[in-house]
Amino acid sequence: MRKAELTISSKNYGAWALRGWLAAKLAGLEFTEKVVSPDDPAMKAEMMLLSSSMLVPSLQHNKIKVWDTLAIGEYLNEIKPKAGLLPADQAARAHCRAICGEMHSGFSSLRTALPMNIKAHFADFKIWSRAQSDIDRIVEIWKECLANYGGPYLFGQQVGLADAMYAPVVTRFLTYNVALDPVCAAYCQRIMELPAMQEWVAEALKEPDDIDELDAEF
Amino acid sequence: MRKAELTISSKNYGAWALRGWLAAKLAGLEFTEKVVSPDDPAMKAEMMLLSSSMLVPSLQHNKIKVWDTLAIGEYLNEIKPKAGLLPADQAARAHCRAICGEMHSGFSSLRTALPMNIKAHFADFKIWSRAQSDIDRIVEIWKECLANYGGPYLFGQQVGLADAMYAPVVTRFLTYNVALDPVCAAYCQRIMELPAMQEWVAEALKEPDDIDELDAEF
Repeated sequence: MRKAELTISSKNYGAWALRGWLAAKLAGLEFTEKVVSPDDPAMKAEMMLLSSSMLVPSLQHNKIKVWDTLAIGEYLNEIKPKAGLLPADQAARAHCRAICGEMHSGFSSLRTALPMNIKAHFADFKIWSRAQSDIDRIVEIWKECLANYGGPYLFGQQVGLADAMYAPVVTRFLTYNVALDPVCAAYCQRIMELPAMQEWVAEALKEPDDIDELDAEF
Repeated sequence: MRKAELTISSKNYGAWALRGWLAAKLAGLEFTEKVVSPDDPAMKAEMMLLSSSMLVPSLQHNKIKVWDTLAIGEYLNEIKPKAGLLPADQAARAHCRAICGEMHSGFSSLRTALPMNIKAHFADFKIWSRAQSDIDRIVEIWKECLANYGGPYLFGQQVGLADAMYAPVVTRFLTYNVALDPVCAAYCQRIMELPAMQEWVAEALKEPDDIDELDAEF
């Protein structure tokens, strides 16, 4: 029996934790969760972007330790190739990695101005122009993928790593009441209806409210 | 005959361009270079981090277009598997992707405060404490890799993607005269001695000086 443990942080605020956790769920990996407290000094430093993201998410699988969300995604794809986390077609796979990479290194205005906060809802949130540019690019990415590969997920019939990478954006769009066209709105609904997302959200809603919002992970 | 074209920016300032270019050279890919002017509005937006990094570097190979440095690295590893851009051992490969991911999404203080500038040399550069934390983490990564895999490169005998990802850090350490222990200093020298690095640096030194340093890519 192979053992896997995934280290995560808050389910309400932890956007990177959600990406890694959802990818592991979609891969069909059986794992236990290790939750790091937001009061942990290393976690605080990581949330404040003072240190690299080594702590959350990180995956311990047998004797292999993997950190960084994309590295975890690639590792999961290697150990669970049948789960289809990455598209089988080479051109689609390159496209998938490109947009996962954009999410991994970019969209800093969106991440800073609209932090993940599943429990909250801001009906009249004013979106800063730079964050709006990030939103526009994400909408462009989604529409291109949904048109090219036919949906219902970003790379077709199989929900995968790209959907996991953008899942915290979906929750942000709902939290901050971001206006979306019907195609993107339907995609958001589809992601929220994934059983794994429903499980994550249910647990996020149960989290105590005493976490300082300033600690929210961007 | 397969055709490949890599889009890059300034060889003096373009840290992401260097990563993608060096990875392609190490993979043994034959490619032509397409240089985007720093005056190009899309390039300006990208350098100012106003948009995702889609333009530089990007690789057009046959009918496949790949952007984002890590996605290019993974694609090169797929089409040139014998080049050994990623380690053959699964645990080492996971480790390699983890530290490539750290470079891809992190070290923002170092990237902001010490932008790549191959032509320059600042003997008495004052390093901000947050940039020093980034440097400390990079030194820790390098020393762990060089000790675990025996050098001379980060993952052993074969120079690869991790070395390409950290190559612009090597040039920064030299530009800003960052004090290093002998192990890391020797590693920097080894990277600078790579024929591909010598080629890049020679062309960087020939670049005209009229590029506004404010346009430097972080």
